[in-house]
Amino acid sequence: MPLDALGTAYGPCLSVDLQALAHNWQIVRAACPDSSVGAVLKNDAYGLGVALVAPRLWRLGCRDFWVSSLDEGLALQACLPVDAVDARQQGLRVWVLNGLGGGQAQDFAPHGLLPALTGAHELAALCRQPLPGDRRLPVAVHLDTGLTRVGFDSAGWAQLGADSALWRAAQPRLWLTHLGRFHDPEAPQCQQQRQRFVQWTARLPAAARSIATSSSVFAGQKWHFEHVRVGSALWGVPTSERIQVPLRPVARLHAPVLRVADVAAGTEVGYAGGYIAPRDCRIATVAMGYGDGLPFSLANRGTMVLAGRSAPIVGGVAMGMVALDVSDYAPGQVQPGMWAEVYGTQQPLTQLAAAAEVPPNVLLTLSARLAPQRRAVDGAS
Amino acid sequence: MPLDALGTAYGPCLSVDLQALAHNWQIVRAACPDSSVGAVLKNDAYGLGVALVAPRLWRLGCRDFWVSSLDEGLALQACLPVDAVDARQQGLRVWVLNGLGGGQAQDFAPHGLLPALTGAHELAALCRQPLPGDRRLPVAVHLDTGLTRVGFDSAGWAQLGADSALWRAAQPRLWLTHLGRFHDPEAPQCQQQRQRFVQWTARLPAAARSIATSSSVFAGQKWHFEHVRVGSALWGVPTSERIQVPLRPVARLHAPVLRVADVAAGTEVGYAGGYIAPRDCRIATVAMGYGDGLPFSLANRGTMVLAGRSAPIVGGVAMGMVALDVSDYAPGQVQPGMWAEVYGTQQPLTQLAAAAEVPPNVLLTLSARLAPQRRAVDGAS
Repeated sequence: MPLDALGTAYGPCLSVDLQALAHNWQIVRAACPDSSVGAVLKNDAYGLGVALVAPRLWRLGCRDFWVSSLDEGLALQACLPVDAVDARQQGLRVWVLNGLGGGQAQDFAPHGLLPALTGAHELAALCRQPLPGDRRLPVAVHLDTGLTRVGFDSAGWAQLGADSALWRAAQPRLWLTHLGRFHDPEAPQCQQQRQRFVQWTARLPAAARSIATSSSVFAGQKWHFEHVRVGSALWGVPTSERIQVPLRPVARLHAPVLRVADVAAGTEVGYAGGYIAPRDCRIATVAMGYGDGLPFSLANRGTMVLAGRSAPIVGGVAMGMVALDVSDYAPGQVQPGMWAEVYGTQQPLTQLAAAAEVPPNVLLTLSARLAPQRRAVDGAS
Repeated sequence: MPLDALGTAYGPCLSVDLQALAHNWQIVRAACPDSSVGAVLKNDAYGLGVALVAPRLWRLGCRDFWVSSLDEGLALQACLPVDAVDARQQGLRVWVLNGLGGGQAQDFAPHGLLPALTGAHELAALCRQPLPGDRRLPVAVHLDTGLTRVGFDSAGWAQLGADSALWRAAQPRLWLTHLGRFHDPEAPQCQQQRQRFVQWTARLPAAARSIATSSSVFAGQKWHFEHVRVGSALWGVPTSERIQVPLRPVARLHAPVLRVADVAAGTEVGYAGGYIAPRDCRIATVAMGYGDGLPFSLANRGTMVLAGRSAPIVGGVAMGMVALDVSDYAPGQVQPGMWAEVYGTQQPLTQLAAAAEVPPNVLLTLSARLAPQRRAVDGAS
């Protein structure tokens, strides 16, 4: 991608590489040929923008989508390249991870959204306010096999037999659980969760089953069951050090240089003297800060890439600016208006995330702030 | 504000108290009666939403607004309660902190936006592409008196005499500088910056001057000059421990409880066993996570307020969920659908920010992610 394609340098710009997304989709698809693959698009597609990625995923054949909430589900449907009726006829299923979220069956059914029920209280709520007639709301049901977050735990599961009156208003289409050590499916805790999931679902009404996410989908067929749910892998974000898969990074973030200045040794750079120039040096100010999602913990840590090489971050991270030490560049080589790569093809997201001591998805997701500055690239190599 | 007014519990909800904003505006106004007051609305008004706060600020008499970039300036104008022509006739001035940001005079002049030039390169750029005719673009000029971030440093200042050819295309309306220790105006470094600012501007073309921001505006008249620029104080966010002013919090953030579960001693809670129940306990899962701006550093740190008392965060912060230990509540007291106050009137923003080891504005600004879940409250006490 030529940097001049980024245009005028008003602020940070997130580029979303749809070819890389297609590549990653095929990698995932090939890893679990006998399962349906759901794209996890919660949090506005991890900050990449549902409106950018959902149409491409649809064209790639994706028909199952996972979002956090009802409003995210409606937003997703609105940006698919087919209308709602056609989409459902073609197999669209939008699963809502937060369950009913205080809503009722009537909020979901007309839109074809399927809540992933978070506990017995939601099944009871559906019974209190069922759909008109004898219709039952199609739902997923979350089973809490060990993460202790949402879903039916062992006590809740015990009430869920096939003949339970709780099924009066809901029809289970999918059982799901989520691994506490999702990045390490071979951990004994994960094996135990899997075993529990198999045992529990064997005594429940027949429906599809789903455990695997972005790491476990590559950990062998035993994890696949009928459905897998993949977010990070689609964006090329590795979630496991043990599993090496040739994914390509989908997101690239750039920010413009605002000013370049020569400063004398001893000069304070940034708030509260967060950095003091140890020698005469040259400082480039970049228009990106914590308000754009750059972790505050990058003060005097990590780098950005300018003109093909890394420049260290010096001083603190302000709301909209951060400083780079560019003393090692040739005089005049760094100019205002140049684009610094925050992460992307030259500096992996994982590298900056490690410097910030956060998981890669924290860094990725916070770019949701950049909604007006997102753009799709297609055909970048 | 009654919590049931928050409506259905799909996800976190940011409430913006416009009466508190009006209160804070008056406090600031009274502190510097002889200066104009500019509202700093960069980063979508620190995450509170320009569309919510700008119309109220306008009605309160605010006519100067500061934004980061040209596109933020246009967005601001679009949400004022008067059209662009009327607004300019009534004195609107929108100042753009990042300067030209790669744009040209033609990008700013038609919209009445005034860039705060970040260095000599921007004045030169205006000379290369001036406005048609003999018109000069009205600008602010940033002077770098010690922060080492943007603006003319001493070398740049030396070229800026009143008869400099650099003024061919630009007309200075305001000189500004920014304190490196903005939270502590009495620091010797701040005094030195002030002295330099006075000396520099004395030898420059006459224009208004501005140093003070949210702390220094309350540090005495010597800081006020002709214009002050205030963001944090408007939102009731204290930026200085030394200066106590009766500001009121404008932002309140709530998130809904998704599930409540009793767990046995030894149970792992959250990813990778981030917390292990030390005894039988009750865990409430709240629908908010780092994807909504909750700092990742709150793992096993900090609290949220449920039913009038604090519940500790246990385990890690996931993208959309976090767990609270609610063992000390009466059985059944905490229910799914209840709203937890993340910060607001019961738990100050500063308290959660301290637990996360970030400045309050980091926590505030990241709520920009919540754009669809923002709402104004008016008349809350």
